[in-house]
Amino acid sequence: MARSNAGESVLSRAMRILRLFTSGSPTLTVSEIARRAGLPVATAHRLVNELVELGALDRVEGRQVRMGYQLWELASRSSRALDLREVAMPFMEDLQTVVRQHTQIGVLEGTDVLYLERLSARGAVQNITTIAGRLPIHATSAGLVLLAHSPLELQEEVLSRPLHRYTPRTVTDPAQLRSLLAQVRREGFVVAAQMISQAGTGVAVPVRGEEGEVVAALPVVIPAADPHPRAPVPALQAAGRGISRAMGAPSVDEDVLRSHGPRLPGDGRQRLSH
Amino acid sequence: MARSNAGESVLSRAMRILRLFTSGSPTLTVSEIARRAGLPVATAHRLVNELVELGALDRVEGRQVRMGYQLWELASRSSRALDLREVAMPFMEDLQTVVRQHTQIGVLEGTDVLYLERLSARGAVQNITTIAGRLPIHATSAGLVLLAHSPLELQEEVLSRPLHRYTPRTVTDPAQLRSLLAQVRREGFVVAAQMISQAGTGVAVPVRGEEGEVVAALPVVIPAADPHPRAPVPALQAAGRGISRAMGAPSVDEDVLRSHGPRLPGDGRQRLSH
Repeated sequence: MARSNAGESVLSRAMRILRLFTSGSPTLTVSEIARRAGLPVATAHRLVNELVELGALDRVEGRQVRMGYQLWELASRSSRALDLREVAMPFMEDLQTVVRQHTQIGVLEGTDVLYLERLSARGAVQNITTIAGRLPIHATSAGLVLLAHSPLELQEEVLSRPLHRYTPRTVTDPAQLRSLLAQVRREGFVVAAQMISQAGTGVAVPVRGEEGEVVAALPVVIPAADPHPRAPVPALQAAGRGISRAMGAPSVDEDVLRSHGPRLPGDGRQRLSH
Repeated sequence: MARSNAGESVLSRAMRILRLFTSGSPTLTVSEIARRAGLPVATAHRLVNELVELGALDRVEGRQVRMGYQLWELASRSSRALDLREVAMPFMEDLQTVVRQHTQIGVLEGTDVLYLERLSARGAVQNITTIAGRLPIHATSAGLVLLAHSPLELQEEVLSRPLHRYTPRTVTDPAQLRSLLAQVRREGFVVAAQMISQAGTGVAVPVRGEEGEVVAALPVVIPAADPHPRAPVPALQAAGRGISRAMGAPSVDEDVLRSHGPRLPGDGRQRLSH
């Protein structure tokens, strides 16, 4: 009985309605909802009423509705996003006092980076990242770190499809990208200069979980004009290591060898095996 | 057809399932879900499957499910929680570098404070606040600020019911609480010493929105042993003013007069009328 005549479930329609609310359209009328979701007005009306009753949507003036605090509260309370963020925040704050631009943390969602948190100084360089926003995996420093440590199938999937060139410095050639990913694994960090916007350079390191697997990327964004883009790397590595340890990651000494010791043959694709 | 035989809608059941996931029980099996939500196992099974398909829940090992990133992403993307938080963060970071304990922001939800954000120094005093967590309005500095500026009906509702005494310093007497609220409106800040836990003192100021109405409270938590609990007040007021301005609040000079000028007769309950 959860299915409507059209074969789409009530839950699926409700999720479709909730997905219409974005930072660009935070409030909508029922008729806008019906039109954008491709639903009959009566159906949209009924579902919106119920979502308001349940606290997922709030009514605002002028017959508009918006997301309430309750859905955010519900989703945040038990979310891994918040767990990771909460563990990372003290380290991110320390890092931000050194970097004084933007300090972020992102996870892999599909083939995007989903940003869980961003600390920004007032007057910092323009930065297209938003919290709970996504950016493509191949054109961001966080994405390159996550892609470098993701399963081979995902890497091949990304490498095999046409990649959007955001700036002249976006790496879209599969061979070149493959070699960049190998470098990221070998060096333990990436400097992505002007790959997604002309204004900024991203510098990122991995964050590891209990099994030593990469669970997130920790990027800072600095002005592209900064003459020392590698300067944040030691502070980033210390913070990445601190967050990993707090996430229960095993000792990461091998990483230190890999970053600072002689370059090893092979591209170091294998996972740490502690 | 959104209604089940028992008269409860599919959406309502789904929300009930989602509400079971908390920081204390981040992963659950279908049978736990059925038991805790009071649903037949087959119904719980079907709803959980659908929530997984829709990306609201993720499967983990051992036949358990948990909240996915997607619901958090969806709820965060267009949420007022995130807007306010994003506006407040640079000011909160500045404040935190001065206070070096805990800097928070909270809004009124029912008769609770819902905390949208918390910055904490490592080694800071114990603090029972969690992000997306709630605390009672009468026993926290943020709550007292929000209650002092909330509609008279809400104040009367809170004052007329039995209030829990968390510590010997929680104000539970209606007359005493009424006078404290008047003081908060008059002075523009509150110092709530050991009102909800023996360890900490909350100090909070209001944050105003476009109409000059109080939309949030900005508290810091410092150790109860701190001999100068009023020391953070000027920095808090500056930050509160900065966030209010960034939220589009009108000039708040009257507030300055009210805080620093001679005390006016009356309790200043009226809203700013710019």
